[in-house]
Amino acid sequence: MRIGLDVMGGDFAPKATVVGAILAQNELPAEDKIVLFGDESQIKALLQENNASADLFEIIHTSEVIDMHDKPIKALASKKDSSLSVGFEYLKQGKIDSLASAGSTGAMLAGAMFSVGVMEGVIRPCLASFIPKDKGGITVLVDVGVNPDAKPEVLCQFGLLGSNYAKCALGIADPKVGLINIGEEDEKGNLQSQAAHQLMKKEKSYNFVGNVEPIEIFKSNVDVIVCDGFVGNLLLKHTEAFARTFVKRGLVDDYVKRFNYEIYGGLPLLGANAVVVIGHGISNEKAIKSMILQSKTIYNSHITEKLQQALIKN
Amino acid sequence: MRIGLDVMGGDFAPKATVVGAILAQNELPAEDKIVLFGDESQIKALLQENNASADLFEIIHTSEVIDMHDKPIKALASKKDSSLSVGFEYLKQGKIDSLASAGSTGAMLAGAMFSVGVMEGVIRPCLASFIPKDKGGITVLVDVGVNPDAKPEVLCQFGLLGSNYAKCALGIADPKVGLINIGEEDEKGNLQSQAAHQLMKKEKSYNFVGNVEPIEIFKSNVDVIVCDGFVGNLLLKHTEAFARTFVKRGLVDDYVKRFNYEIYGGLPLLGANAVVVIGHGISNEKAIKSMILQSKTIYNSHITEKLQQALIKN
Repeated sequence: MRIGLDVMGGDFAPKATVVGAILAQNELPAEDKIVLFGDESQIKALLQENNASADLFEIIHTSEVIDMHDKPIKALASKKDSSLSVGFEYLKQGKIDSLASAGSTGAMLAGAMFSVGVMEGVIRPCLASFIPKDKGGITVLVDVGVNPDAKPEVLCQFGLLGSNYAKCALGIADPKVGLINIGEEDEKGNLQSQAAHQLMKKEKSYNFVGNVEPIEIFKSNVDVIVCDGFVGNLLLKHTEAFARTFVKRGLVDDYVKRFNYEIYGGLPLLGANAVVVIGHGISNEKAIKSMILQSKTIYNSHITEKLQQALIKN
Repeated sequence: MRIGLDVMGGDFAPKATVVGAILAQNELPAEDKIVLFGDESQIKALLQENNASADLFEIIHTSEVIDMHDKPIKALASKKDSSLSVGFEYLKQGKIDSLASAGSTGAMLAGAMFSVGVMEGVIRPCLASFIPKDKGGITVLVDVGVNPDAKPEVLCQFGLLGSNYAKCALGIADPKVGLINIGEEDEKGNLQSQAAHQLMKKEKSYNFVGNVEPIEIFKSNVDVIVCDGFVGNLLLKHTEAFARTFVKRGLVDDYVKRFNYEIYGGLPLLGANAVVVIGHGISNEKAIKSMILQSKTIYNSHITEKLQQALIKN
C-alpha cells in the first residue's frame, strides 16, 4: 500500500510529521511505502537529523503550503504546488492509496471534494470520531467538524455512513445508531433534530434506536451517534478538554488513558471517493504515527467500496 | 422571604421535595417561610414521617400535577389546580417571592411567561447553569435548555442576561462574555454563531471577548459562555455524564466533587419578571434543599431589579 502524508500540515509540521513518518515506517511491512508531500530539503534534513534513510520513503517535493488562515477553496486553486494540492492530485490519479494530513480540516474537505469527489448518492461527507466506552469498545461520533450546518436529510445520511463504518472498520454486525439530543422522547430537541428524528425513524438502511443523551457516548447501548459538525466538534473538544483536565490533576486510570487522541491519530472522512484521513492540528509525532497506521487500517477495512455498495443498495 | 416550592415536581417527588424542604427549613432563619404547593395529605404524611411540624411550613393544597409527558402550555391552561399553576399564580400576586421546581422545564418556562411574564426588552428568557472552574469560581453557561432554537439576536441578548447575573450574583465587576464555538477565529462556526458573533462584537452593554472553545468552560479566562439551549443542555449533560463516569471509577478530588449538581440544586430563569428556579429532574432531597437555599441567594442578589435596570439602560 502507498500511504500519502502531507508533511506540511499541522501545528508542529514538518518536524512532528517527518518524525511521525519515521516511527510509522518502523512498524509497517516492507511492501508499504509512505509517500511524503512537502519541502524536500526540509524533509531530507529532518530524516538525516533522525538517522533515517531517505530511501525508505518516497518524497514528492512541493513548494507551497496551505495554512490555517487560508480560505480552503481559494488556496487549493491558487497554490497548485502546495503539499495538499499535489497530494490530492496523486490520490485522484491512484498514485497513492490514501492521503492523511493534520493541517486545515476545511482544506482537506475541499481538497477531497474537488479531487476524488464524493461517492454517488452522498449529500455531504462527514468526519467520524471515536470515543472510548467505559466497558471497552468505542462509540463512533459523526460528524465532528466538516458540516457545522447540516440539514435533517444530511443528518439522516450520516447514520448510514457511520453505520457502515462501524460495520467495516469495527466489525459490528448491526450497529445501533442514535441521534444526539437533549431528551429521549421523539419530540425533544431543536427543529433540526426533531426533523432528523422523523427521517431516521423511517430509514430502513440502518438500525436507528432513537434519541440519545450525552451519557450514552460512554455507554454500550449505542454504536454510532449522529450530530452536526458544530455539535459534534464541541462534544469532541469538550471530551478532550475534560479528559486533559483530569489527567493534569493526576486522576488517571486505564479508561482515562484511552481518551488520548494520539492513540487514534486521524479520523476518516466518510463519503469521500478514497481514503482521506484528517489529524488533529496539535498532532505530535506519536499522533502522526497513529494517523499513518490508521490510514492503513481504514484502507484495509474496504470502507470506500463497501460504503459505495451500501449507497447503491439504498 | 417567602420561598415557593412545587412539591409535586421531579422524579422523586413528593418524598424528595418534602424532605428537601425540611432540610432547608433547618438552615433558614425564622423569618423565612417555605410555601409548599401540592397534595396536602401527602405533604402532611411525609412531614410527620420525618418528624417535622407542619406549622413550620405554609401548605397550599393543590389537586393536580403537571408531569413530564404533559404539553406545557396546554397543561397549565387545563390543570388550573396543579401545583405549578397555583404556584405561579401566587408568584404573580406577590404572595411568594420565588418559585422553584424540579419538574418539567418546559412547564416552568411556560408558567413564568404566562404569569409573571418576561422583563421589558427581553426577547427570550434563558436558563443559566454553573460549571466549576479548575482554579476556583464558576463559569456561567447560558442558555442550558429553554431555547433549543435561538436566533443570533437572542444569543446576543443572552450575553447581557448572563453578564448581569455574573455581576449581581457572583460579584464579578466586569464579566468576560464568550460565545461557544468550534474555533477562536471570528468566522468560525455554523451560520447561527457566525451571525451572533458579529452582533456581540458590536454590543456595548457587556464585555464580549470573542469565540471560546469548550476547554474555556473549565478555565479562568471567561466568566460567561453563551450558547443556545440545545448546545448548552448537551454540554451540561455531557459534563455531568463525564464527571459521574469518573466518580464511579473512583477518580475523585475536590474539583471533581464540585461537579455534583446537588451543590447548586437549581438554576435561575434569567429574564423572568420574578425569581424562578428550575431544578434537575433527578433531584434528591439534598439537591432540593440546595434549590430552596439557592432561591434565597438569587432573590437576595436583586437580579430581577438590576437586570431590569440594565435592560432599560440598553
